[in-house]
Amino acid sequence: MEMGKSTALKKETHRSNSNLVKDIIIGMSDGLTVPFALTAGLSGVLNTTHLIIISGLSEIAAGCISMGLGGYLAGESEVEHYDAELKREFSEIETVPELELKEVEDILIKMGVEEQLSREVALQISKDKTRWADFMMKLELEMEKPAKNRAAISATTIALSYLVGGFIPLFPYIIMHDSKTAFYISCFVTVIALMIFGYFKSRVTGQPVIKGTFKVTITGIAAAAAAFLLAKAVS
Amino acid sequence: MEMGKSTALKKETHRSNSNLVKDIIIGMSDGLTVPFALTAGLSGVLNTTHLIIISGLSEIAAGCISMGLGGYLAGESEVEHYDAELKREFSEIETVPELELKEVEDILIKMGVEEQLSREVALQISKDKTRWADFMMKLELEMEKPAKNRAAISATTIALSYLVGGFIPLFPYIIMHDSKTAFYISCFVTVIALMIFGYFKSRVTGQPVIKGTFKVTITGIAAAAAAFLLAKAVS
Repeated sequence: MEMGKSTALKKETHRSNSNLVKDIIIGMSDGLTVPFALTAGLSGVLNTTHLIIISGLSEIAAGCISMGLGGYLAGESEVEHYDAELKREFSEIETVPELELKEVEDILIKMGVEEQLSREVALQISKDKTRWADFMMKLELEMEKPAKNRAAISATTIALSYLVGGFIPLFPYIIMHDSKTAFYISCFVTVIALMIFGYFKSRVTGQPVIKGTFKVTITGIAAAAAAFLLAKAVS
Repeated sequence: MEMGKSTALKKETHRSNSNLVKDIIIGMSDGLTVPFALTAGLSGVLNTTHLIIISGLSEIAAGCISMGLGGYLAGESEVEHYDAELKREFSEIETVPELELKEVEDILIKMGVEEQLSREVALQISKDKTRWADFMMKLELEMEKPAKNRAAISATTIALSYLVGGFIPLFPYIIMHDSKTAFYISCFVTVIALMIFGYFKSRVTGQPVIKGTFKVTITGIAAAAAAFLLAKAVS
């Protein structure tokens, strides 16, 4: 019992950590990458850092609001979508109960429960409509109930991660005047940051560390290279 | 049976549509918003459109790669995370089978199944280890198996949506020379696009249409206003 409890707790912690980490990853990946790429691109066509800083700051502000609010709205729609499907499930229980009962039975049979026992269990589950609907949501629609406060937490986490990530490539342009020198320092600092971020991301998500670190770093470099070449080509 | 099948199919379609729509929403929200905000911010401090176009294009390229690859990596980690938890579940079935059997029983009891019947059903489910682990994943950890090819589809959808979204606010700067005129047209076109996008988003996700449209539009305007004011303040 003691052990079962601690395992359950461990699993629970795993799950909410995984949501937080996913949001930090979403915000930080883009935050490290897009402002890095944008400032790198502009440094190829501008000699002073003034406009690069303005662009970088504008982009970080826009990115924070867009991703934060975007994340909030996405989380909110998830809750609304779940609620709509749940409502439909309840109405099907009212209107076609024998069909829904058969569906519970079929799901149990698929789980390896004998036919007659499935019928018995289905009848017991159907005694409580909330449990019945919950069963259908999880096992027929395979939808998990999203946490109600998830959207706001998710939004804040994504926005802050974007902000923190975005300042790393930008700060060399703030403290230097020559855009070329700032560009080299920004590349150096950001590639190191991408590697550290990639390393922690891989550790936390249980991916192979070298492969994971490499993937994150190459994404940032690819985005910066694309922006740099495009800016050069257009100017 | 015919009806049950068509309902199941409807629900399946619902589910994969919901993933696609979610990705389009993620890409298009940011695509419409960030390049809009960035170009708007720069138009406040620059008189010609040349550098605005370069910034906008760099940002779109960086955003597509970052969000697309970011989405791909996030989807891939989801698959890897699921596989790691599944492996752990299998190992627990091997090492502490009586504890895992008790967990199946407890879950069934919570569903409203009587104690003795729960024991019987748990024993039947545990005859097949794959079904047993599957049961634990869905009902104890509440994790759904992510589709294997989801990551690549998701990445492409997000990147393309970002690209399409990003060109809407940018194209006025491409066809005009005066940044002020281009700014007004970009605002007009993008706010309309945000409203249309918000309307469809609300329809598809089953949200109240006016509220949903308003939310999307206000996010875009807030991001652009923040970028504009920040650019003005810094320059």
